[in-house]
Amino acid sequence: MAKLNLTALEFKDECLVFLDQTKLPLIEEYVKTDSYERIAGAIERLEIRGAPAIGVAAAYGLALSLKGKTDSLKETFETARKRLASTRPTAVNLFYALNEISVAFEAATVFTPTDNTATAGNEVYSCLINKASEINQQDIEKCEAMALNGLEIFKAKTTVLTHCNTGALATSGNGTAFNVIKRGFENGLVEFVYADETRPLFQGSRLTAFELSRNHIPFAINTDSTAAFLMQKKKIDLVIVGADRIALNGDTANKIGTYNLAVLCSFHNIPFYIAAPETTVDRSCPDGSQIKIELRGKGELTCFNDARITSDEYEVYSPAFDVTPSSLISGIITDKKLYKPPYNF
Amino acid sequence: MAKLNLTALEFKDECLVFLDQTKLPLIEEYVKTDSYERIAGAIERLEIRGAPAIGVAAAYGLALSLKGKTDSLKETFETARKRLASTRPTAVNLFYALNEISVAFEAATVFTPTDNTATAGNEVYSCLINKASEINQQDIEKCEAMALNGLEIFKAKTTVLTHCNTGALATSGNGTAFNVIKRGFENGLVEFVYADETRPLFQGSRLTAFELSRNHIPFAINTDSTAAFLMQKKKIDLVIVGADRIALNGDTANKIGTYNLAVLCSFHNIPFYIAAPETTVDRSCPDGSQIKIELRGKGELTCFNDARITSDEYEVYSPAFDVTPSSLISGIITDKKLYKPPYNF
Repeated sequence: MAKLNLTALEFKDECLVFLDQTKLPLIEEYVKTDSYERIAGAIERLEIRGAPAIGVAAAYGLALSLKGKTDSLKETFETARKRLASTRPTAVNLFYALNEISVAFEAATVFTPTDNTATAGNEVYSCLINKASEINQQDIEKCEAMALNGLEIFKAKTTVLTHCNTGALATSGNGTAFNVIKRGFENGLVEFVYADETRPLFQGSRLTAFELSRNHIPFAINTDSTAAFLMQKKKIDLVIVGADRIALNGDTANKIGTYNLAVLCSFHNIPFYIAAPETTVDRSCPDGSQIKIELRGKGELTCFNDARITSDEYEVYSPAFDVTPSSLISGIITDKKLYKPPYNF
Repeated sequence: MAKLNLTALEFKDECLVFLDQTKLPLIEEYVKTDSYERIAGAIERLEIRGAPAIGVAAAYGLALSLKGKTDSLKETFETARKRLASTRPTAVNLFYALNEISVAFEAATVFTPTDNTATAGNEVYSCLINKASEINQQDIEKCEAMALNGLEIFKAKTTVLTHCNTGALATSGNGTAFNVIKRGFENGLVEFVYADETRPLFQGSRLTAFELSRNHIPFAINTDSTAAFLMQKKKIDLVIVGADRIALNGDTANKIGTYNLAVLCSFHNIPFYIAAPETTVDRSCPDGSQIKIELRGKGELTCFNDARITSDEYEVYSPAFDVTPSSLISGIITDKKLYKPPYNF
């Protein structure tokens, strides 16, 4: 249960303290804020990222919107909720967390005198922070449950390929897919990890590499399209990735490139797994065709930080996520169990 | 037959003049040199790239090694030949061109008095430059023949996806796969092009985008792993790419990511074409298992130019090419004809 020697997200001194992931692995810089607007901006700019971490950060952000507030609680809360909900459309955990805090707000304002005194405002704020803290704690526990439930996918000396980042940086615990890999390694089952660099934002070569290195797990970074070559050379035993949204039939939205990997696994007869908490299942979504895909701006392809790669006059097509049909998924590991097809959440 | 308003490679004033492709599309900088060492360095650093262009540049480079030489012709020639041959192991055109110049050298030194006078040296040099110029001219003509032979792969309003760069920058003519697309566009058959950015060196988003833009062909750049998403959404009618080496059975080595596309095309039932001059066929190579794959250094993944992406302490696995089995190739377009499977060169 030992957490990584790094905390990506923490509530401390009535503020959210988070690690700015856009600067990793070169700079480890923490931001401390009690502004929901700053937190919303951080989610938009991917300073905070990873579906579970976004959920926890948004929960604290929404709670913090009432910090020190004595009047117009309802209006302030609604404005903050809408702002936080507008940050990223695909990660279901964001909406789950905002909804949990909203339910807590309704409950708190029913039981608290609504005479807008400082005491009343503070009581509501405390209730919401407690709820956010509960979501945070649940996230940590779910990460451990997933790691346990996922252990059976490994044989001895497994070489794993993963995509994007799903570790301590993407959650408030030890991660989803990453924690399954980490537990596999700690149990002597995972021997080597190939990390897709994960264009356009390099979450693999920056963040997953950083976490693999911190955990002393042997690994190499590869360009995303090298995954096919590795599979052709029989160097990959299985692929495991996270999820941003899972439909009731098991269709799964995750970082762009995930569907590519699932097709490659199908072609090469390699197992392809998803790991995500049950809260990633969108109960209102029967199948993947209903999942809205966020399109990102051209700057992520034409620049790297301040270095220009190519002309910004060129058109760019950059979906942030893709949807993998459940028919290509060998198993979905949640905090409850390892689901096998056919999926029926 | 109009050439692009840009010449990537030209012999002028007894020098090779080439466009430094590492700086495109932001800076159009030409380098003028009569040093074979400078040319070898340019090939290694990918200032000159693309299998046919490498061949032409190496031919001029080897010829230039004798410029102004009056003695030790044989030794100088051998040193230069070995140096140029050591630059890139996968592109067969390099070895084809060096071999052609070597044959010309043997012939010239048989028919030229070997008394090592300035006149004799100059005569040999002239013969070699003539031969290099002939290879150059043949390359230009082959590009046009490929474009014609490839035209039949298009239906009206075809949307094409391509990988890496195969145009005027990759050849001394108008390109291989790129020229097929260009001719298709000029004939009203190609409507839109998706250009894989082509990690790690962004030949797609830098060079192919530059050429598409210059030719006024509508296009968008996408990350390499977005190709699967595009195919899933039925946005791609066919894929066409170049080749660095083709085995006698049709197995084809090309830029890393090509095999990935071929698998995706097979899965989505989309035609997958190769375009390359006949000289790309390696007559000594029965199948793809014999093709040596160049591994590139970690800097290409951990940095972009001077901007660091991730720590250089992380291990990187970076093959420059992959081999697509002929079973996944719908057709191979050469300057002779459009070959259909089974291939038997």
